[in-house]
Amino acid sequence: MVSHNTILVKQKEIKMSNAQKTKKDTVRVGYIGLGARGYSMLEKCFAHMSDVEICYICDFYDDRIDKTLKHFEENSLPMPKVTKDYRDILNDETVDAVINMTGWNVHADISKESLLAGKYTAVEVGCAYTLKECWDLIDAHEKTGAPLMMLENCCYGRRELAALRMAREGLFGELIHAVGSYSHYLPDCDLFVSRGEMGYPYRVDEYIYRNCEQYPTHALGPISKIFNINRGNRFLTINSIASKNRGLSDYCKQNLADTPYSTTSFAQGDIINSVIKCAGGETIALTLDTTLPRAFYSRSFSIRGTRGLCDESRRVFFLEGMKEPVENNEESVMSEHEHPLHREYLSGESLGGHGGIDWLVSRAFIESVKYGTNTPIDAYDTVTWMSIAPLSEESILKGGAPVAIPDFTRGKWFRREPATKQKYSLDTVCEDESISIWSSQRK
Amino acid sequence: MVSHNTILVKQKEIKMSNAQKTKKDTVRVGYIGLGARGYSMLEKCFAHMSDVEICYICDFYDDRIDKTLKHFEENSLPMPKVTKDYRDILNDETVDAVINMTGWNVHADISKESLLAGKYTAVEVGCAYTLKECWDLIDAHEKTGAPLMMLENCCYGRRELAALRMAREGLFGELIHAVGSYSHYLPDCDLFVSRGEMGYPYRVDEYIYRNCEQYPTHALGPISKIFNINRGNRFLTINSIASKNRGLSDYCKQNLADTPYSTTSFAQGDIINSVIKCAGGETIALTLDTTLPRAFYSRSFSIRGTRGLCDESRRVFFLEGMKEPVENNEESVMSEHEHPLHREYLSGESLGGHGGIDWLVSRAFIESVKYGTNTPIDAYDTVTWMSIAPLSEESILKGGAPVAIPDFTRGKWFRREPATKQKYSLDTVCEDESISIWSSQRK
Repeated sequence: MVSHNTILVKQKEIKMSNAQKTKKDTVRVGYIGLGARGYSMLEKCFAHMSDVEICYICDFYDDRIDKTLKHFEENSLPMPKVTKDYRDILNDETVDAVINMTGWNVHADISKESLLAGKYTAVEVGCAYTLKECWDLIDAHEKTGAPLMMLENCCYGRRELAALRMAREGLFGELIHAVGSYSHYLPDCDLFVSRGEMGYPYRVDEYIYRNCEQYPTHALGPISKIFNINRGNRFLTINSIASKNRGLSDYCKQNLADTPYSTTSFAQGDIINSVIKCAGGETIALTLDTTLPRAFYSRSFSIRGTRGLCDESRRVFFLEGMKEPVENNEESVMSEHEHPLHREYLSGESLGGHGGIDWLVSRAFIESVKYGTNTPIDAYDTVTWMSIAPLSEESILKGGAPVAIPDFTRGKWFRREPATKQKYSLDTVCEDESISIWSSQRK
Repeated sequence: MVSHNTILVKQKEIKMSNAQKTKKDTVRVGYIGLGARGYSMLEKCFAHMSDVEICYICDFYDDRIDKTLKHFEENSLPMPKVTKDYRDILNDETVDAVINMTGWNVHADISKESLLAGKYTAVEVGCAYTLKECWDLIDAHEKTGAPLMMLENCCYGRRELAALRMAREGLFGELIHAVGSYSHYLPDCDLFVSRGEMGYPYRVDEYIYRNCEQYPTHALGPISKIFNINRGNRFLTINSIASKNRGLSDYCKQNLADTPYSTTSFAQGDIINSVIKCAGGETIALTLDTTLPRAFYSRSFSIRGTRGLCDESRRVFFLEGMKEPVENNEESVMSEHEHPLHREYLSGESLGGHGGIDWLVSRAFIESVKYGTNTPIDAYDTVTWMSIAPLSEESILKGGAPVAIPDFTRGKWFRREPATKQKYSLDTVCEDESISIWSSQRK
């Protein structure tokens, strides 16, 4: 669906990164947000990259700052400046990139200011509350040309990357349907109980006051990339339906009887079912499933095409020529069709958390800053995914009626080419395996 | 939700079966439709029951009649009368029950006439085309009091029955959500290729002209029973979204190049996603998945509650007190919580097809006729399930907008008590194991 008449768009995209066209040896980073996730990504990934200098750390809370400084000291890393005001970072012209690991409620505001300051901006996963925030991010991005990248680590999952490669190579035939979920029982971990002493749980409020698909991107990110969203395809509509909610109340009565939570009313349905329809006619079935007891974490990742399928739940790939029944062949198929990014990761030393996906997504951002390119998850992707929460909220309020998903590219989606072939690109299969970066970029 | 003010409703239900209150030693059956499914159910189940006399067989096609008569002769069974006009059966006062195994397109008409003739009526699975047909069936049922039962064999699946028992016993806690699908790649079997020489494939036309959830009952039947639909709960709305269709075209181009199918346009989307919302706040996610290559047949049966889950895809039950990770424990949990009906079936000789479900559903119908009771899947259940196809068609046409599902009980759903405790009841857990029927009812 990519038109040849893309010259204007391409010029704009090239202009976008003019300021940073020269390769940087060191990327100077301002790091905002040192909560559970922020600290973990700093400690395991960003602080230990040989081509990254953490110039600033920023948080409201002294104990988080202290803990972070201690980590730098103990690991003999160059000490960063400390600030409680992220504007100090934005005002420093020597800072190349901002990594925004704050809470959901300030993701959009801080990212917008960072883009307006012309900084490469990474933002931790999470959604917007309103479409206005989404458009503000697009406006800011288009005004300064600064790239914006959601750090959606699941785009770099081994299964998802193998499926991406196989989809690009046509092994599933024409793509028709995808399934994804965030199936993770949260009461025992993220919601009420902090992970480690530094956590201030805030997500429970999202369950008290909202009823929506509030955490879609682990599923939707990889599927978007496979379905070429914003580059030849786009999301058209979303229908969302919520079940009643009983899971959190039941949990609180059993486990938090002495707290105010035991009598709290929750707005969020236990199961949110959504279907997204794409311009190419594909459908995506999405489930948020976080408050009823489960036996296991799952993203329920499945891709369906005219010639094959990938199914996380059954641990199966089924491709043309295979004979039924096929069982548990996932490991052998993934090994055979390993995405080069993951093959390289697996061959190196194990870095970062979550089986490599944190390291890969972090490197993808840093490499983009270093080489002055657009980010493989770009501003349009980021904002499209962030818009799902408020759009699903509206659809739930309307009984599951279809709600139009804005075209945040303003018509560019059917004119844009796949992302430039680059090491961390999710839009093409990278053939260049000449550079081994894992050891050299480990401090 | 069952009110105590049920006396009028109960009187009506009792009146309904007055004509057949005495226990019959032999149930006299008129059997209509000898296609692939009809012949199979006759040959494997109904013709070989010691308390059933097949008085009539009825079909348009001579070869089907001949094949059936041959089976009776070879097995020394009493020979039935033969007719091409099902009205001969309806006009015979000595016939107790009609078993309607015809094609989808005449299910509703023949069943309606059978009910109006006062016959216990069984109808093979399938949906209506219009709500009018559904209401006509209800009117006919309420006029004569004759029971109507869809022969939804999956209500008697081992996993589904175990889950029903466990749900009734509260092991899942409060029920919140269910998942179900008909995931079965049809081009290789039912759609273009007949099963056996007697088949005249007609379902392909349903894929050429319609776009809907046209085969929901294997999933929805068992879930309805677990969710107490029409007895304290009801379906409120359905939202349905269809993907594009490419699967059948691709199949036909590859495999049926020399037939008109190779250039046929199909209306039916490859994947139909539906969500049904219930009066009790529960949701049901339903998928029709029959035209894209798959590795295995599945009904994706899953029940979610505040205290536990059942998940066919992972072959897992997860109940309070179990520790993660739980893997492949389905067999041991089902054995422990085996539904009495299935325990009894497993202990006897293996009868009927599909692992017992055909035999169990057939017996459930015959036992109801024999004892003059209502059927465990009753007219309201049957018609509610049959209405899903036209309702989903409307929702798809409206972009997945919610479509109201009629209350076919006309307000009785919140006044009706669970079905009388009977051997084949799906509404209560049967404790009566004193009668062993498997051998005695085999001719």
